[in-house]
Amino acid sequence: MKQYYSENKERFLEELFEILRIPSISSSTAHKDDMFRCAEKLTELLKAAGADKADVYPTDGHPVVYGEKIIDPSLKTILIYGHYDVQPVDPIELWHSDPFQPEIRNEAIYARGANDDKGQLFMHIKAFEYIVQKGLQRHNIKFILEGEEEIGSPSLAKWAQEHKEMLKCDIMLVSDTTMIGEKTPSINCGMRGLSYMEIEVDGPNKDLHSGHYGGAVVNPLNALCTIVDRLIDADGRITIKGFYDDVVELSTEDRAMLARAPFDAKEYNEFLDIDDVNGEKGYSTPERTGIRPSLDVNGIWGGFTGEGAKTVLPSKAFAKISMRLVPNQDWKKISQLFEEHIKTITPKGVRVKVTTHHGGNGFLIPISSDAYKAAAKAVGEVYGIEPVPSRGGGSIPVLAEMQQILGVDPLLIGFGLERDTIHSPNESYLLSQFEKGMESIALFYKYY
Amino acid sequence: MKQYYSENKERFLEELFEILRIPSISSSTAHKDDMFRCAEKLTELLKAAGADKADVYPTDGHPVVYGEKIIDPSLKTILIYGHYDVQPVDPIELWHSDPFQPEIRNEAIYARGANDDKGQLFMHIKAFEYIVQKGLQRHNIKFILEGEEEIGSPSLAKWAQEHKEMLKCDIMLVSDTTMIGEKTPSINCGMRGLSYMEIEVDGPNKDLHSGHYGGAVVNPLNALCTIVDRLIDADGRITIKGFYDDVVELSTEDRAMLARAPFDAKEYNEFLDIDDVNGEKGYSTPERTGIRPSLDVNGIWGGFTGEGAKTVLPSKAFAKISMRLVPNQDWKKISQLFEEHIKTITPKGVRVKVTTHHGGNGFLIPISSDAYKAAAKAVGEVYGIEPVPSRGGGSIPVLAEMQQILGVDPLLIGFGLERDTIHSPNESYLLSQFEKGMESIALFYKYY
Repeated sequence: MKQYYSENKERFLEELFEILRIPSISSSTAHKDDMFRCAEKLTELLKAAGADKADVYPTDGHPVVYGEKIIDPSLKTILIYGHYDVQPVDPIELWHSDPFQPEIRNEAIYARGANDDKGQLFMHIKAFEYIVQKGLQRHNIKFILEGEEEIGSPSLAKWAQEHKEMLKCDIMLVSDTTMIGEKTPSINCGMRGLSYMEIEVDGPNKDLHSGHYGGAVVNPLNALCTIVDRLIDADGRITIKGFYDDVVELSTEDRAMLARAPFDAKEYNEFLDIDDVNGEKGYSTPERTGIRPSLDVNGIWGGFTGEGAKTVLPSKAFAKISMRLVPNQDWKKISQLFEEHIKTITPKGVRVKVTTHHGGNGFLIPISSDAYKAAAKAVGEVYGIEPVPSRGGGSIPVLAEMQQILGVDPLLIGFGLERDTIHSPNESYLLSQFEKGMESIALFYKYY
Repeated sequence: MKQYYSENKERFLEELFEILRIPSISSSTAHKDDMFRCAEKLTELLKAAGADKADVYPTDGHPVVYGEKIIDPSLKTILIYGHYDVQPVDPIELWHSDPFQPEIRNEAIYARGANDDKGQLFMHIKAFEYIVQKGLQRHNIKFILEGEEEIGSPSLAKWAQEHKEMLKCDIMLVSDTTMIGEKTPSINCGMRGLSYMEIEVDGPNKDLHSGHYGGAVVNPLNALCTIVDRLIDADGRITIKGFYDDVVELSTEDRAMLARAPFDAKEYNEFLDIDDVNGEKGYSTPERTGIRPSLDVNGIWGGFTGEGAKTVLPSKAFAKISMRLVPNQDWKKISQLFEEHIKTITPKGVRVKVTTHHGGNGFLIPISSDAYKAAAKAVGEVYGIEPVPSRGGGSIPVLAEMQQILGVDPLLIGFGLERDTIHSPNESYLLSQFEKGMESIALFYKYY
């Protein structure tokens, strides 16, 4: 692949830049036509790379691109997921170049989508082209490229359900994440799930004067704080009854493997300007954010929040609370347990309403799986260092949904770096990572 | 007085209406001239009633009206406090008549300020007129009428300090509160003090993705809830070290006296639409709001509070927290104790900043005092029922300040009723209360 890239580098970049020039911002209706234009362009690229078919499929929202090259139904099938929509570009004044006029500076591509996810999905198209052109294809290869990832993928699950047969595969391959560093290549073998809830605490039917009622009427704000405080115990464990029932404890071996990822506690604290971390007793920081569930208040509000002072005992108090789940925890079950638990810990004198916003399950590719092993071998060969397995603390709910629909695990082989500042101004993607990514993907086909 | 009122009723009302027609809204700079006009008018009324002198005194804000009739420096001196400024009138569309065109409907005066406090202070001017005209004056009588009560009296304390000698008195008399009911006359013999604080909890130096950091980085919102929860124990007692040190326990006798005020728990809960009350163990609802200190969160905010969901682990969290204090608790000392305590209960991993907004001390007129006894006798005679002593849970910080400057207690003999909806549209004042108020005040002069 290395040679193929050096022979075709100019063409590759020009093709990528053509896609990057299309402002496919999914959150803005003004860009509806751009979404179609981008989708059309991708089908052309897939066909040019060697796909037997590649089409734009309408959905309830932005279109899905699907392409494939089936060589033998009895062979293993790899489904590549990517998304061609991008984040908005505000604040535009902080960009050093036009976000939709890609340019190369300091050995990196600068543009909105340079990494997330146009740059990364493009590596897959080109690795596919290489495999096909060189007669190296040993799997059936399918592409599904959506246009709504940045807005929560509202249409994909339904569409995938309707095209389940067409999407059948043995493994889902995704490059939409980062690795720890250029010198510490890593493969993300799991993501946490999510259950996002909202609590409303109702007290008196109107805002009261805290002087006249304070001390006797239960204050929804105080009650809310009590509820939140009761959700986590002194050992950092979530107190919801049954919460840990489905959590699979990792083996000592697995924990040792994950602990190989470099972690500098001092640097971490300095980066965040915190005195110390804290969390579930008995686990390290990377474990707390990777392999253990967590619970966070994401927002809280109620009463008088303006400047100055108002002595109100408010009628209502609100909090948004989300839980990060680990594979095997079912987010719907957890949401239910949360709701039941909240009711049991609400102080007397107030009522509580619990709403589920949304959620998704976590997923996990075992380090012992063929797919992980192939990816590790490929990445190791390209980087000259064995990659470390990592566990993403975040959630990609659409992948959890796809996993449920298709019954296969996604493998997250991402080549982004923290420095790429995706979602922010001056998004970039290092040419070296772009190249190594393509090489790694091409080798994955060899070793899987 | 009864007869004097019936002979002069028309004139009284016309004089009151003249003041009510002046839109003396202290919070709006557009009404600066109206404030002066109202102050001028009041000096005229005081002089016409019999004051030896009555003047408009400029302050850093709206002017103060001061008038007096000194008959013998060796006699006791009564200082009457009132305020001639009013609340804004929004939402104006809910008024059934022009707030500044007073009218009488259903035996009540309707206008902004009809009760609070123009109507109530006017009773004092007329009772004074009666006493003077009928040769019944047995005390030196002083009036101080300010124009900034509704905006927190920012200028009065300084002015009073500068005119301390002129304001010297034995008792401060104030009609700016309500009584329990027409059939349950009450005299407010104490108000709670106030300490209003703000807490800022600082976590990481930027908002973080809760998926990537949740579980390890201490979340300021969760930490804030823990702090708040730790402020009150399971028995409803405030946990701040030293908080109760200066709280004077009421005698069984005093508690029995206060318990005479009618209180219907069922009605109370129904009025507020709450299932139950809760508070400090061992005290009744009226005690919890009247004679015991309390702590309330008045506002809380942080993180994502918009519609939908955002998985943020925010950098900061905020709460406004106020404490109602009882007489003998010093609000500055309590604010200090609060700050020290917060620092000891803040979870590790976050930092906390504590700010004092403002405060004031509570005050208390003993039921056994001459002033209380005279007021009780007067009110009892007019209403035909012995009034009950009540304790206001709220705070009038300016009176606490005046008490400190002048060294005398304020007696709150208010004739407003809950139905008057002061501060709201269609503020009113029952003619019967207006009349009984004047009679009670006139009798107070007789019995004090």
